[in-house]
Amino acid sequence: MRFPSIEALVDAVATRDPRGLGRAISLIENNSAKLPELMSKIAPSTGRSHVIGITGAPGVGKSTLTTALIDEFVAQGRTVGVLAIDPSSPFSGGALLGDRVRMQDHAVSPHIYIRSMASRGHLGGLASATTQALRIFDHAGFDLTIVETVGVGQAEIEIVSIADTIVVIQAPNFAGTLHMAKAGIVEIADIFVVNKKDHPGAQMLARDLNQLISQSEVSNEQRWCPVVVETVAVTNTGVDRLVTMIDKHRQCVSDQPSWARRRLDRASSEIRDIAVGQLTSQIMGRFKDSFIALTEAVAAGKLDPYQAANDLFEEMRRDV
Amino acid sequence: MRFPSIEALVDAVATRDPRGLGRAISLIENNSAKLPELMSKIAPSTGRSHVIGITGAPGVGKSTLTTALIDEFVAQGRTVGVLAIDPSSPFSGGALLGDRVRMQDHAVSPHIYIRSMASRGHLGGLASATTQALRIFDHAGFDLTIVETVGVGQAEIEIVSIADTIVVIQAPNFAGTLHMAKAGIVEIADIFVVNKKDHPGAQMLARDLNQLISQSEVSNEQRWCPVVVETVAVTNTGVDRLVTMIDKHRQCVSDQPSWARRRLDRASSEIRDIAVGQLTSQIMGRFKDSFIALTEAVAAGKLDPYQAANDLFEEMRRDV
Repeated sequence: MRFPSIEALVDAVATRDPRGLGRAISLIENNSAKLPELMSKIAPSTGRSHVIGITGAPGVGKSTLTTALIDEFVAQGRTVGVLAIDPSSPFSGGALLGDRVRMQDHAVSPHIYIRSMASRGHLGGLASATTQALRIFDHAGFDLTIVETVGVGQAEIEIVSIADTIVVIQAPNFAGTLHMAKAGIVEIADIFVVNKKDHPGAQMLARDLNQLISQSEVSNEQRWCPVVVETVAVTNTGVDRLVTMIDKHRQCVSDQPSWARRRLDRASSEIRDIAVGQLTSQIMGRFKDSFIALTEAVAAGKLDPYQAANDLFEEMRRDV
Repeated sequence: MRFPSIEALVDAVATRDPRGLGRAISLIENNSAKLPELMSKIAPSTGRSHVIGITGAPGVGKSTLTTALIDEFVAQGRTVGVLAIDPSSPFSGGALLGDRVRMQDHAVSPHIYIRSMASRGHLGGLASATTQALRIFDHAGFDLTIVETVGVGQAEIEIVSIADTIVVIQAPNFAGTLHMAKAGIVEIADIFVVNKKDHPGAQMLARDLNQLISQSEVSNEQRWCPVVVETVAVTNTGVDRLVTMIDKHRQCVSDQPSWARRRLDRASSEIRDIAVGQLTSQIMGRFKDSFIALTEAVAAGKLDPYQAANDLFEEMRRDV
């Protein structure tokens, strides 16, 4: 281990040492036994970084836009941490980083740290691992932290929901638009980006989104109404306006109940996910033999799964 | 309540009474306190129905193909239960059933039962609710049970993975193809369908899929190598061959270790999900006040989430 102690690691993270950041996030990825100690040492520093969640279907230009966004933030003298959630094979375990290559251009700057995290294999759930990684970025003192996910499924929406400001990227003529509307993305997005605004259909998409926004319910307490920003990421067009809207969102709502509620929701999920992760660890660890026997009985139709879960809880209780 | 007792409900399910089936699945959706009793009464009958998982990106023709598939099964004198997982808004809670309308044509036949279930709001998780619903369909004695999901995210893949036979539908010129490959769908699919085979690009897609299959690792114990079936769902073209391949998959692998392992995995997830659901119920119920206080402390940076989870476990332990 490069770091003689958790204290040394915590110090390295605080100075944005890339090796320290990488090591800390690896501990999260591997659900290390050192994690509770690490988290207890960095807890007091939470909540300074502005967390931006970015999602969109594959092919809409998400990586290109994120890269342009980072450039813009850095040009303004701000520091940016990026956590890219990579879909990975549930079997091979390998993350495909092909479309991350361009983003690695940034890896040399001291103002930027980019790290990808596989979306699979987190015992306590991906949301839990993501929230813990955000604590690391926050402790490192990045002005902005970007969480980027690929895809439009339930899990991806859950991840970006962790953010303070949620950016949803779309592009004309992509099949994902209706699906996104269905999946409830309209209700959670703070900013819609219509990328590739020079392509046919972009105006119609922007109009449709504005209509969706005008039809959706906005509660009285909300001071922010979702906006649509049009960009061409490859030529940097509209990226300055996107930055403006991201900052404006924070200014407008950071003293609002909705902002505090999102952070409360995040803390609530964190505690619950850790509790669930610990339960799962016990089931797959100390009580594994009983669990396997119960599983075989349920698969054979000899036992119902509720009784099996009860038996498991009983055994855990007796063990205390 | 229509049914005077759980016994009466179990009997109604066994005769495929649509009201009984609907009521039983509602109990699952609402995470009813009666669920453990219901599940214990139907447990001995598990494992007869052939469960087929169907997924694909929005727009590939999934509903049309599922409808054609049902027609074909019924023409052969077989009974079919369909569980359609509907993406629903996390906020409004409403499921959009627009593309389900055609499937409702089948609702009048005694050989078919179709039910949609919202993908959101399941305390023990969607996978857990789906597995429980499969027990209901199994107890009802359907020859085949189809589980259909929309989308290509992690959660959707997790759901279809529950099935005995996994069918992944694609169509030419959809952006989801690369994403699916990334998300590990290649490893889990037993049958790929290239729908809209009369459209440009279909031949290339089928060739690409066959190439992906030939490159993927096939373990020695496997007797089945994924196949590609080309269809035009709107004209019923190729649907008979799809039925043949689904039956062939069962014949080829039902005595194989991989088949038994999938059913063991299903039982293992069931027990774990129920245990997690019970933990979550307690956190959100009996220990809610403590949980809220801990959440506020974590959000304020006064407590780290691991310590909070520990405090919660301690309190639960003292309460026993």
